[in-house]
Amino acid sequence: MLRNDQLDQWDRENFFHPSTHLAQFARGEAPSRIIQTARGCHITDRNGTSLLDAFAGLYCVNVGYGRPEIAEAIAEQAKELAYYHAYVGHGTEASITLAKMVLDRAPSHMSKVYFGLGGSDANETNIKLVWYYNNILGRPQKKKIISRWRGYHGSGLMTGSLTGLELFHKKFDLPLAQVIHTDAPYYLRRKDRAMTEAQFTDHLIAELEALIEREGADTIAAFIGEPLMGTGGIVPPPAGYWPRVQEVLDRHDILLIADEVVTGFGRLGSMFGSDHYGIKPDLITIAKGLTSAYAPLSGSIVGDKMWKVLEQGTDENGAIGHGWTYSAHPIGAAAGVANLKLIDDLGLVEAAGKNGAYLNAALTDAVGAHGQVAEVRGEGMIAAIEFMEDPDKGAFFDPSRTVGAKVSAALLEQGVIARAMPQGDILGFAPPFCLTEAEADEIAGKTKKAVESVLG
Amino acid sequence: MLRNDQLDQWDRENFFHPSTHLAQFARGEAPSRIIQTARGCHITDRNGTSLLDAFAGLYCVNVGYGRPEIAEAIAEQAKELAYYHAYVGHGTEASITLAKMVLDRAPSHMSKVYFGLGGSDANETNIKLVWYYNNILGRPQKKKIISRWRGYHGSGLMTGSLTGLELFHKKFDLPLAQVIHTDAPYYLRRKDRAMTEAQFTDHLIAELEALIEREGADTIAAFIGEPLMGTGGIVPPPAGYWPRVQEVLDRHDILLIADEVVTGFGRLGSMFGSDHYGIKPDLITIAKGLTSAYAPLSGSIVGDKMWKVLEQGTDENGAIGHGWTYSAHPIGAAAGVANLKLIDDLGLVEAAGKNGAYLNAALTDAVGAHGQVAEVRGEGMIAAIEFMEDPDKGAFFDPSRTVGAKVSAALLEQGVIARAMPQGDILGFAPPFCLTEAEADEIAGKTKKAVESVLG
Repeated sequence: MLRNDQLDQWDRENFFHPSTHLAQFARGEAPSRIIQTARGCHITDRNGTSLLDAFAGLYCVNVGYGRPEIAEAIAEQAKELAYYHAYVGHGTEASITLAKMVLDRAPSHMSKVYFGLGGSDANETNIKLVWYYNNILGRPQKKKIISRWRGYHGSGLMTGSLTGLELFHKKFDLPLAQVIHTDAPYYLRRKDRAMTEAQFTDHLIAELEALIEREGADTIAAFIGEPLMGTGGIVPPPAGYWPRVQEVLDRHDILLIADEVVTGFGRLGSMFGSDHYGIKPDLITIAKGLTSAYAPLSGSIVGDKMWKVLEQGTDENGAIGHGWTYSAHPIGAAAGVANLKLIDDLGLVEAAGKNGAYLNAALTDAVGAHGQVAEVRGEGMIAAIEFMEDPDKGAFFDPSRTVGAKVSAALLEQGVIARAMPQGDILGFAPPFCLTEAEADEIAGKTKKAVESVLG
Repeated sequence: MLRNDQLDQWDRENFFHPSTHLAQFARGEAPSRIIQTARGCHITDRNGTSLLDAFAGLYCVNVGYGRPEIAEAIAEQAKELAYYHAYVGHGTEASITLAKMVLDRAPSHMSKVYFGLGGSDANETNIKLVWYYNNILGRPQKKKIISRWRGYHGSGLMTGSLTGLELFHKKFDLPLAQVIHTDAPYYLRRKDRAMTEAQFTDHLIAELEALIEREGADTIAAFIGEPLMGTGGIVPPPAGYWPRVQEVLDRHDILLIADEVVTGFGRLGSMFGSDHYGIKPDLITIAKGLTSAYAPLSGSIVGDKMWKVLEQGTDENGAIGHGWTYSAHPIGAAAGVANLKLIDDLGLVEAAGKNGAYLNAALTDAVGAHGQVAEVRGEGMIAAIEFMEDPDKGAFFDPSRTVGAKVSAALLEQGVIARAMPQGDILGFAPPFCLTEAEADEIAGKTKKAVESVLG
């Protein structure tokens, strides 16, 4: 085993970490943490520090860490056949079985699944399919994509454009021209404080209609949204939002992409967020929960309406010019099959709903009455606490005070990981579905202490 | 174990395969093949058919199939820690060790490596970094990317735009506006048959200079190219090409991205194609050979010059807004460490050169004198045979005759996989580096039969 200090030096000299302050890290001013092992909801680093991971990695280790059933499936697949490609009709027992399992769980009007590697590339696939679809239908001008401010759909050039967060646009020349944004369905941050939630939904729908009117429905191909907004703040939609969005899109013949990277496979206490909110999407993006992150795998689930046109496209043009070398990678597929079986066997979708409700209630009990906690919100096994200087007056903290980051740091000092979400003072929680009541109580209790240590 | 006929039905009902004729596959008119196991250079499907894979998957299984050393490293990592993220300075022993190993092998002016999942997302990262770099340097107009016709750099929206092949553009509205293409360094396909190879290089450099002049060097950020062109035809560069390209780019302050997804880690008989051809790139794209495809992993190796500016960027703007959930995934990192160790221990880079030279010579002996074989070309463990109706007159076959596909099919009937490359009648070979002389002889002998069966 390598000594920590040598690893630390190698790390700073060679490793370009994502979402990191590169200069501070290289100079040794920002911390490194080398994770060694993990079980259930706990991770342990090489210094022997154990942490309660209330964000499940990046809200992806849904079944919890250290599941031998998935590790063994990966080991078995690696031994038998680590790789063969899926091009031109090739497959493996694992990839075909997983395709069947995904479609068995998806809304009934979905038809096929394309497997990629991560959520970003799955959304990249989705936009390619949407453009192809309208080209086959002879509507070459119908190509713009509506996304929402604060939506998160990836970190690439197109997918980072779909993402509606400043951090992912600034200095990268994003968003690209074909992407247009509409308002975030974020009631707490409504401009007009006097609006009721129902009025706010009316407002969002009117804004969407106005955007479509302004741009022209014949130029707009699709709308993309997370059923419950994730990285932009962990925000459940306002009452009545999704059925009305769907109605507007249907009326203008605009496709609906449900980005279920976070919500797919149980996070909300339902198999899919689309079922949860009564959405009927044309494409569903899946990733994280598909394998609980034990191996990289993502997917684009294609609905009947689009699939028919894709078939027509290949009849007219031959094989589709899209593929990743690692599409439907056998290791990812084997992890996916084992993960979905485990979710069924242990009833983890139901557990996410039940244990998540307990966590949400515990957090509300712990800090809901604090004068600078504007909201404790959530759904299933996902929750957020948002801080404001004066919630009654609608006054947010000055961002330079980094209140959210400070509370997150104070929580980490007590051994609990929660995520300071970008663009706001928002503390995010999305633990594994197997979270126990004792663990939920520990998270809530320590969160209370952390909040009080920062805000009094 | 599932019955084949049931798997076949599930496959056609649920699985959206990459680069496939979707309608024919769904209707059962196009074949499926379910791969079950593989060892060395051979794969075996569920019907018990064994095939000699002379394309190493998608030229990625460089060390050969079924290596227990890599399978065990994956199994061990899956058991110990299948996943934790690499954001904000987090890492694992495997990911840090691999970063060090990559930099130890890369050209000495390279500084850091960002790990992604596949080659497409690595090139996506590269373009983001190039744009960020010029924004930090206060050159917001310097953003266009020069790629080459027939280059292959991925299948996404931006990366498919960099790719210079019709199949990946048609019906997808690509290339995007920021990408401009220059001539392919493909001597056999020169327009003026009278040109010598040296004159052809002069012509390519003049065309590149003219493109830069036309667009304005102050609008051009980077040039991307594969050291040896891959999917566009498996074409070694004409004599003197790379040093002269490099000189032009340096003079105009244009960054050079070497896409080494195919050539990295030994394919040419050198660790990197950049070393092989004396290229000094600012960014190197790696994927396939990094793990020999045993698990998905890619990388962007960043040179000193760019890294300094990225550090400056985070000092001025805070953490960089780029990251994939599965960046530096522990399973991929563990596979990469074991793979690079195996390459060293077995001397596989040298083997690729030696065994590849044997294969190239055997193919030349077998079909080089055939009247409709225009060229047998290659370098290290990669080779192509290009067919023309009349090589002396420079006459290509009518594409509708699908000569390349027919030869590939005739070879497959004899149990050997070679790839019919797109946009031409070109048969590609890129076997694992451990190819034996007996296997090379078998490939060459069966190729001869296949060529004669199609062309007489």
